[in-house]
Amino acid sequence: MKFIGTVAVLGTGLLGASLARALKKLPDAPRVAAWSRGASTRAKCRALPEVFDEVFDSPEEAAASADVVVICSPTANIPEIAAKIAPAMKGGAAMTDVGSVKGAICAKCAEIAAAENRSREESGRGGKIFFAGSHPMAGSEKIGIDFSDADLFKTRPCFVVPTAACGSGQIELLRAMWESVGMRVYEVSPEEHDAIVAGVSHLPHLVAGTLCNTAAGFPSGDLRKYAGPGFRDCTRVSSGNPEIWDSIVADNRDAILAALRNFSGELSELVSALERRDFAKIGGKLRAAKAYRDKL
Amino acid sequence: MKFIGTVAVLGTGLLGASLARALKKLPDAPRVAAWSRGASTRAKCRALPEVFDEVFDSPEEAAASADVVVICSPTANIPEIAAKIAPAMKGGAAMTDVGSVKGAICAKCAEIAAAENRSREESGRGGKIFFAGSHPMAGSEKIGIDFSDADLFKTRPCFVVPTAACGSGQIELLRAMWESVGMRVYEVSPEEHDAIVAGVSHLPHLVAGTLCNTAAGFPSGDLRKYAGPGFRDCTRVSSGNPEIWDSIVADNRDAILAALRNFSGELSELVSALERRDFAKIGGKLRAAKAYRDKL
Repeated sequence: MKFIGTVAVLGTGLLGASLARALKKLPDAPRVAAWSRGASTRAKCRALPEVFDEVFDSPEEAAASADVVVICSPTANIPEIAAKIAPAMKGGAAMTDVGSVKGAICAKCAEIAAAENRSREESGRGGKIFFAGSHPMAGSEKIGIDFSDADLFKTRPCFVVPTAACGSGQIELLRAMWESVGMRVYEVSPEEHDAIVAGVSHLPHLVAGTLCNTAAGFPSGDLRKYAGPGFRDCTRVSSGNPEIWDSIVADNRDAILAALRNFSGELSELVSALERRDFAKIGGKLRAAKAYRDKL
Repeated sequence: MKFIGTVAVLGTGLLGASLARALKKLPDAPRVAAWSRGASTRAKCRALPEVFDEVFDSPEEAAASADVVVICSPTANIPEIAAKIAPAMKGGAAMTDVGSVKGAICAKCAEIAAAENRSREESGRGGKIFFAGSHPMAGSEKIGIDFSDADLFKTRPCFVVPTAACGSGQIELLRAMWESVGMRVYEVSPEEHDAIVAGVSHLPHLVAGTLCNTAAGFPSGDLRKYAGPGFRDCTRVSSGNPEIWDSIVADNRDAILAALRNFSGELSELVSALERRDFAKIGGKLRAAKAYRDKL
């Protein structure tokens, strides 16, 4: 990454700390500046000088010297952090985030960058800043810096989401950064992004939860002792962190609702085929599903 | 298993051949007699004399000397095989099957045993035969004798299903047999059995298929390249053998329909909570699901 001098990682949980580790393992590793909200996490970062070149007590200080700033905080805090660091950023620097829903975040952060640029222009301070969204689809049930892993991103998909506050140069820069840590990068609009993750991640999570709640309502005793690997696999994602899911559901409400309605429509077709004993139709649907899944 | 002299395994696919392997590894292994519909499978059995003591060309011959007959054929063939072997069975012998739906099979096979017993009584031939259902919940995507494994049943649940054509002695015998190969045995009625497997196996299969078909209908391109481990796990069972699922869906239609309706009801609550932005309700449901899943 010799084309990036300094990356600032704001928030050093699983994603942020893993990104720092992965970047520092590159042959042309950038300098990594970091900030974390928690003093104890900052102390952990300072104990890893091979991963974090410099650890700051405020996000503004960490962002000030960076060419690329990656906001790796919980989704709810991203716009607040973006607003705080925008005035401190170098002219020409790009800001991105790793939030798992992009519509609202991209709109808010692009406006923050645009407002900062208007204010710089008015005051005669030169050098625009830029914002584009990112969503590296990597993670695990394990959270926090202690589980950080330089290989977390390898072979996983990553979305890069252009906004009105960036140009193609910033998109290429972010693409190069995520590819350098091993990701497959896809460029999509915020709306496409939110519909895609609703389909491959949010809908399966709600469906798995509904399977658990249906099983829990089984009238004659606890079904869990009879569960085999099928039930186990189908419901595994239900064990995910509920706080993360609270914000995902609220942030991506519209796309999730659309995906749930499509799913319900498919399910109703199964129910009515079963009601009229149209087993050929059900067999056709299960064969279509198998053909789809076999090519995953 | 010194209390069983001979077990006849009728059908030597994955389940039947694995049962034979597991029984022959016991310190007091019974004699294992076997039959398979396919000549090539019978040849494979004859090449495994340490697993199959004797391999017969007809199910009647294989069943004739047995104390316990285990019908391990595809579900659709079970009653036909039961009817064929009933007249050949020794007085006092017990018949069971390994079909994954129990209502219809248990009713048919119990009637076959009862009819045989009436005919024996009328003709003065002594010695009743018995039938109780079994459902060892073991298996894999890999099917056939080539994948058979003496450890297939270890720690897995097995249902034993009493009928009017058996007494407590036969239930204890079958319980002892399945426990001897490592299974956790549960005694349930046919109706309970079918509701349980609808909830833990058939509903998840249909739901996983519906997730695939919903994803396949995504309007803007193939979602699969974005899929992570969550989508992968939630849909894994969709790759199962469609022929097996055709008979399961037809045989267990009523219990599956009831489970699907319960699931749809749960899902509708999620949809309407999302419609009115009642995120607290959704959070509550996801937390309940997590609590349930975490204790699996």
